[in-house]
Amino acid sequence: MIIPLERRPGSPPVHRQLVDYLRRSIEAGRVPPGARLPAIRDLARSLGVNRETVASAYRQLGELGLAESGVGRGTFAVAPSRRRTSDGKDHRESRFAPALSRGAAAASSLPALDYAAPPGAVRLERLVPDPALYPLDGYRRALESALRDEGTALLEYGDPRGHEGMRLVLVERLAHAGIEADPDEVLVTGGSTQALALAARAFCDPGDAVAVESPTYPGLLATLVSLGLRPVAVPLGADGLDLDALDRVLASAGIRLVCTMPTFQNPTGVTTTLEHRRRLLAIVSRHGVPVLEDEFQKDLRFHDRDVPSLRALDRSGQVTYVGTFSKALFPGPRVGWLVAAPPVAEAATALKRAMDLASSPLAQAAVASFCRSGGYDRHLRRMTRELAARHARAAAACERHLPRGAVVTRPEGGLAVWVTLPEPLDAMALLPEAKRHGVVYSPGMLFFPDRRRSSSLRLVVGAAAPEQIERAVRALGDAARAALSRLRRPRPAGVERAGIHV
Amino acid sequence: MIIPLERRPGSPPVHRQLVDYLRRSIEAGRVPPGARLPAIRDLARSLGVNRETVASAYRQLGELGLAESGVGRGTFAVAPSRRRTSDGKDHRESRFAPALSRGAAAASSLPALDYAAPPGAVRLERLVPDPALYPLDGYRRALESALRDEGTALLEYGDPRGHEGMRLVLVERLAHAGIEADPDEVLVTGGSTQALALAARAFCDPGDAVAVESPTYPGLLATLVSLGLRPVAVPLGADGLDLDALDRVLASAGIRLVCTMPTFQNPTGVTTTLEHRRRLLAIVSRHGVPVLEDEFQKDLRFHDRDVPSLRALDRSGQVTYVGTFSKALFPGPRVGWLVAAPPVAEAATALKRAMDLASSPLAQAAVASFCRSGGYDRHLRRMTRELAARHARAAAACERHLPRGAVVTRPEGGLAVWVTLPEPLDAMALLPEAKRHGVVYSPGMLFFPDRRRSSSLRLVVGAAAPEQIERAVRALGDAARAALSRLRRPRPAGVERAGIHV
Repeated sequence: MIIPLERRPGSPPVHRQLVDYLRRSIEAGRVPPGARLPAIRDLARSLGVNRETVASAYRQLGELGLAESGVGRGTFAVAPSRRRTSDGKDHRESRFAPALSRGAAAASSLPALDYAAPPGAVRLERLVPDPALYPLDGYRRALESALRDEGTALLEYGDPRGHEGMRLVLVERLAHAGIEADPDEVLVTGGSTQALALAARAFCDPGDAVAVESPTYPGLLATLVSLGLRPVAVPLGADGLDLDALDRVLASAGIRLVCTMPTFQNPTGVTTTLEHRRRLLAIVSRHGVPVLEDEFQKDLRFHDRDVPSLRALDRSGQVTYVGTFSKALFPGPRVGWLVAAPPVAEAATALKRAMDLASSPLAQAAVASFCRSGGYDRHLRRMTRELAARHARAAAACERHLPRGAVVTRPEGGLAVWVTLPEPLDAMALLPEAKRHGVVYSPGMLFFPDRRRSSSLRLVVGAAAPEQIERAVRALGDAARAALSRLRRPRPAGVERAGIHV
Repeated sequence: MIIPLERRPGSPPVHRQLVDYLRRSIEAGRVPPGARLPAIRDLARSLGVNRETVASAYRQLGELGLAESGVGRGTFAVAPSRRRTSDGKDHRESRFAPALSRGAAAASSLPALDYAAPPGAVRLERLVPDPALYPLDGYRRALESALRDEGTALLEYGDPRGHEGMRLVLVERLAHAGIEADPDEVLVTGGSTQALALAARAFCDPGDAVAVESPTYPGLLATLVSLGLRPVAVPLGADGLDLDALDRVLASAGIRLVCTMPTFQNPTGVTTTLEHRRRLLAIVSRHGVPVLEDEFQKDLRFHDRDVPSLRALDRSGQVTYVGTFSKALFPGPRVGWLVAAPPVAEAATALKRAMDLASSPLAQAAVASFCRSGGYDRHLRRMTRELAARHARAAAACERHLPRGAVVTRPEGGLAVWVTLPEPLDAMALLPEAKRHGVVYSPGMLFFPDRRRSSSLRLVVGAAAPEQIERAVRALGDAARAALSRLRRPRPAGVERAGIHV
């Protein structure tokens, strides 16, 4: 144990510094209860103080109730009765007030909602697969098999582009989806969020504008804003991006990148048609602006009929493609990917190396092994069957329980639906009441770059068991009706008058 | 399998598109040899074409030697005789030339050396621990134990600040090293590189200046430059940073951050004294500039006597501290950490969330479990004993084999030594010859922000077994002496005259 002692003129006595340091360490839990303190002789030698100084400090800790000794066993820390005393942090002489960067301020300024809810409330606010559907045993076997096959190589620094076995699996899966990519056009990333961040940085410098869908994934807004980029909203309707609006935006502003989720869009679940995709490609091609296509939920399709990705239709290398295992498998291993024309992939790789050197080879090798064994495809069959059932249950429940005028999307895949409640409801204002009724969701406001008031909300129906979904939708309906009846009830004249006078 | 077919007027016949697509996929290895092609009936249905169209395409692939069929078993891809035909990538109509960002250009512009070497050459260029010393079995047990204890929770999105068990282990280990930190001041990062990047972004915006040691870790320069930051070099000597120079730099330029490695500095191995650290803190405190202290090799100390970290001596919260398991354990799990005053830790967490959401909980839980079991401390005892022996062997070999005038540092810990060869040798120019003699190292030029010519080089003596070290140092000595004798030999007069006339 090393204890920083001041030994300058005017410093407090070494003995007092020693007691204070140990007391703070025990009180703050840094030295946990039951931990053995260093032997008196050892600590005295390492600090260059008299043994009696240490022994006395230990005795004083004992008097404070923070240490006890057993004969011949040493001295042990004791849990303090209160975790933190009032002067627990008073040891800093004067606090340094750091001047943080504008980027840090931007990243910290993003709204963080209070999702705390009563126990028993059904949590449908996060776009995550239900842990009950995780293929834990299969993944455990894949981990073991990868470690057996590749050993210590999986514990070294990996290739910044990604583990070779993982990239080969991705190349093959992408080919199956109509996307032709060579291994050197594929970069494995720390989830799709890192892929989005790297692609944005490859194309844009701070201050640049990026076209995004409105509504869109809030994490994308956080990533762009923290990089000093300016999201420019393009409306998204029931058929996907409003392409005329996109055309106008690209004609006017100096947009450096267009971000779109053509398949099971977040938050709406909308999938665009082949024709829409061809028109989109024609527009961006005319303006010469690169596209970032995020197909984060592509593998979660309920039916066989797929629509080719923009990247599969692209003949020019204009589309950079992003995918992830986080939604269809699970997010823990942090395996996403980026597919891009070679100069873009190289730039993104250089940026990744400068950010975190490389992703964990073991996690990638395990996911690759799970794919190669057929485990991932088996999991997908089970998962999409289950998700389709949950969506059907949710649709029926919405029909039954939501107030008249509510509109709910019917995605062909993915984890979530987008519910639009009747006006004048505000999904943000409704959230506390909905939580009391027993459901947590993400209010629409979060998904609009301009943070507009919205009666829409995202319900991650894939995150809960069917009977919970029924309960959740009923709770949402009850909360909405209660709020509606309050909003539509004409306010008593007296109250209104009182309000005017106040 | 989805195949993007063009069906507009003027498109090639569907049959030809199909053959071309499959041919390219097989030739490029995206459909690997032996893979079964989709059943004719299924592919025809999913593409909306006649079955005979698919059957004919398969026959044509067979004639090209790219497919073969077994009766009743289906059609299978065959390895092409050449991996890529001349028109392998000619299917893109016109290549989009992406305008990459300045940040991407900066990241891609950093020098990448050619480290290719004859087989048998001893590779001492990368600052990585020797895989022969990895505690593979212990880590495997730690992985199993973590999965047993925490199950699917380790496969979900983790806390952006890091896995709680990991942060508690770090808090306790830090306390043992004299660093008082609460769990909310600790952020787990993707290796120390991500910690450096996040800290730099928390304090600096693009265009800002950052003081760095010269020589320093090239990865730090890559990180700063790719973020649009300007490294300002402060000379580092045998006693650490030149503090008078630091004082002058801080007085003149608008430096936003000072980066320093006071312990087993990379590349020199220098450790500063307690007095030097106190003076450094006084200087930065007078100028009000935050410090980034990187103790990436702290756990690799050969002897008991430690010097308190700047962070342990800091009373004001001015020091942000970075550490990692990559050098003392292994880098694969990507577990580093950042310790900072709460507002800085919060900003760094927000930035991390916007970059990759969170690190893998499983990797963190496994490292934490390995620490709690005592496995890490046992490994450190073995590892530091072994490293001390390798350093001793290297020192003796340098004494014996290097030319007179060579100077070698004697670090008290870590993996590397810094060798300064006699002038006028240039370690960069010497590298090809050294590789031929059987040793690979990192030339000094890489470590100087101004890329100056240098007769110094970094030798990672911890990366190889003792007998290899002996061989490597002898090879270095032979190469250096050969080059020296050429350089010092007066050039024949005739050649010199010829040179003047050409």
